[in-house]
Amino acid sequence: MQLSKIGEFGLIKNLRAKCAHVSPNILIGIGDDAAVIKTTAGKTLITSDMMIEGVHFDLAFTTFHQLGYKLLAINISDIFAMGGNPEYFLVSLGLPKTYKSRDIDELYSGIQKIAGKFGIAIVGGDTCASRQGLILSGTLTGSANKVITRTGAREGDGIFVTSTLGDSAAGLQLLKKRGRKVYGFSPSTPRLRLVKSHLMPEPSPLKSMSGITSMIDISDGLLMDLSRICDESRVGAVIRKDSIPISGELGKAAKSLNRDPLAFALKGGEDYVLLFTARPGIKTDAFRIGEIISRGRFIADSAGKKTPFKAEGYEHFK
Amino acid sequence: MQLSKIGEFGLIKNLRAKCAHVSPNILIGIGDDAAVIKTTAGKTLITSDMMIEGVHFDLAFTTFHQLGYKLLAINISDIFAMGGNPEYFLVSLGLPKTYKSRDIDELYSGIQKIAGKFGIAIVGGDTCASRQGLILSGTLTGSANKVITRTGAREGDGIFVTSTLGDSAAGLQLLKKRGRKVYGFSPSTPRLRLVKSHLMPEPSPLKSMSGITSMIDISDGLLMDLSRICDESRVGAVIRKDSIPISGELGKAAKSLNRDPLAFALKGGEDYVLLFTARPGIKTDAFRIGEIISRGRFIADSAGKKTPFKAEGYEHFK
Repeated sequence: MQLSKIGEFGLIKNLRAKCAHVSPNILIGIGDDAAVIKTTAGKTLITSDMMIEGVHFDLAFTTFHQLGYKLLAINISDIFAMGGNPEYFLVSLGLPKTYKSRDIDELYSGIQKIAGKFGIAIVGGDTCASRQGLILSGTLTGSANKVITRTGAREGDGIFVTSTLGDSAAGLQLLKKRGRKVYGFSPSTPRLRLVKSHLMPEPSPLKSMSGITSMIDISDGLLMDLSRICDESRVGAVIRKDSIPISGELGKAAKSLNRDPLAFALKGGEDYVLLFTARPGIKTDAFRIGEIISRGRFIADSAGKKTPFKAEGYEHFK
Repeated sequence: MQLSKIGEFGLIKNLRAKCAHVSPNILIGIGDDAAVIKTTAGKTLITSDMMIEGVHFDLAFTTFHQLGYKLLAINISDIFAMGGNPEYFLVSLGLPKTYKSRDIDELYSGIQKIAGKFGIAIVGGDTCASRQGLILSGTLTGSANKVITRTGAREGDGIFVTSTLGDSAAGLQLLKKRGRKVYGFSPSTPRLRLVKSHLMPEPSPLKSMSGITSMIDISDGLLMDLSRICDESRVGAVIRKDSIPISGELGKAAKSLNRDPLAFALKGGEDYVLLFTARPGIKTDAFRIGEIISRGRFIADSAGKKTPFKAEGYEHFK
């Protein structure tokens, strides 16, 4: 049924039923002027992300389910990057009138899929008509005992990333080459794994914050986001080219795309992998890619030759 | 300077300086992956509203300052409608690349103007490029001791509104007739007061929640929003035509527009005035416009003749 038939009331009624709250801490969920959450004393995290059709996504390449999944995934990634635990989500949608209620159902199925994985409750938002394509805006709250900012990196800290880099950026190129959506990822192939990491990124938190001095999630590329840590912590960094974790799938895909896999890993963006610094000697499963130094930003090759790097990667308004 | 020159970093740096946090409860403000707020145990309210160019506003008729003011005002209105006290605001912007940094400065000056009035801190958000006009999305948190929902109205309760109705809707018509922006409202005229109530609505909270049984803010028109209270509380309502507060300015403007002032007051929308129900005998400065009954929804004229009303007013997707 088209949104123009179901109407705003019908839509909100549907969403309400879909997002019926189960936690006793949700005093009021969707359907009133604001959501009401029972909070305990502590630190509340809050983050917002907006996704605009034609800028952040192309409906020729993503399903509504994948889009909903990604909207919440990128917000979760921000909460994880602060050392937090995600809790409550609000989603605001600007919807073209021609959309069908099934489209919105699919969008919500994606949001709920990842919400379920992390025990997140959808408590509110806004729905309105858009004359300019689909617009998504999400706000996610979280809680944290120890908050990790971008400001604490110190000379001598190790630099780590929690997963392989560049998969998402290469996945986007594969998707563009393919020229159409992927409806399912099972059975998976190496190429599909890259495409999936672009369409449905899987944020994953650190298990322990002990010894962690700074953290950020890589959304605009390693060089760009590491530069942010350097800026905020007023330090420099050296990363080793050979230590950047690159998946076998990325290696093959880069070959077929006739591109350098390292370029994807350094500047690709949308990895939604955690980049953190830690005091020497911490135990971690993450990949150590370099060290914090007092000043300057360099990439070292296998011979130890250092080349300065700039904050290159994805930037809006350019 | 154009956004394409100042870039995303420059913009965020500006916003950060503008929104430097003063409250000791803001542990982290703009500039990290998420904002961090020190919370005490209690009830946290959270609401989101989206405004899209061409749907919610026309830049031919509003300045950026007025738009920023309104974005936060409509979120504040939602918090007040729950009986809450607004606290922290996140603003996400989808910005055309051709915008100048001065435009964003003006937008923020409007947000900060009303934020200052209510002691609200701007703690975060997202900025991204838009190819489809200006998009604003705001999320506001608040706290409350006693939360007032839409569900508590009971037979015999009085129905009240906190201010005159229809001013905003008539103001929009006057603005369209005028055909251009209003840059200042001082010295004010009756017409300008109506236009101002459209462009820069002034939400105002109830002083006491004692005896209040349900509440909503009027955003889609009295009939529509009263119907929401009736739906949620499973009751009916009768309102008296003669008791609907209509300003002298609206009376004159409606005449000049050749329209019925009551139509503006009943269905105009965007009033951002509180509509509430209360037990008999409460003291209030608000206008009593009718009573909650067991079922049915009626408007009574001066002779006492009752006519059923429907949930008419602004609805998206129609």
